[in-house]
Amino acid sequence: MNTIDFDKSGGLVPAIAQDADTGAVLMLAWMNREAYEETRRTRRAVYFSRSRNRLWRKGEESGHFQEVREILVDCDADTILLKVHQIGGAACHEGYASCFFRRVEDEGVKVIAEKVFDPKQVYKK
Amino acid sequence: MNTIDFDKSGGLVPAIAQDADTGAVLMLAWMNREAYEETRRTRRAVYFSRSRNRLWRKGEESGHFQEVREILVDCDADTILLKVHQIGGAACHEGYASCFFRRVEDEGVKVIAEKVFDPKQVYKK
Repeated sequence: MNTIDFDKSGGLVPAIAQDADTGAVLMLAWMNREAYEETRRTRRAVYFSRSRNRLWRKGEESGHFQEVREILVDCDADTILLKVHQIGGAACHEGYASCFFRRVEDEGVKVIAEKVFDPKQVYKK
Repeated sequence: MNTIDFDKSGGLVPAIAQDADTGAVLMLAWMNREAYEETRRTRRAVYFSRSRNRLWRKGEESGHFQEVREILVDCDADTILLKVHQIGGAACHEGYASCFFRRVEDEGVKVIAEKVFDPKQVYKK
């Protein structure tokens, strides 16, 4: 069996990034084989952007790279878990440490985190 | 905006289960709207099994239900994070606490966890 089964789901598998120190789940993105191989080689998280249809070297715009400490694979070999050190303290393009900054409650969705940075300052146009 | 965007990816979104106490990432599965609504209502994790093409009430066979403590949604509203209490101590059908029990190393893949239960005893045929 291959380490990762990219064929099962059309070439892309989900990749979860978890903070290696705090255990916080930071984000979920997608990897094709090329992204996975570059991630292994460079020890920096590289994803495949479905919207831009190209490799996405996390941090290429913001400087907020993810240093990869560990790569884990699940029982079905179709999901990747990266344990990372998040440069800049925030994985989310909206400025939060984690992309999961909203909790679903009976009344609706509630923001439960505070911003680490101001996206307007980081993503200067 | 809807709480969860099920339409973007053809009706299914990835759902990560994280142990609410230890922070361990337990597994990744998929949810359609029906699975999500039942999860919210019952506070037990319900996924959509792509291989069986039906709702999968996690623990329906093993008794190892996931009690849902929190439901979080990411910035793009297309990934769900469940914080759960895992009954039986193991989320993986292979008997490990987490499905991510293998680490990718230069030499190959290495099992880095110990089994919590013997699958043959739990999934009796």
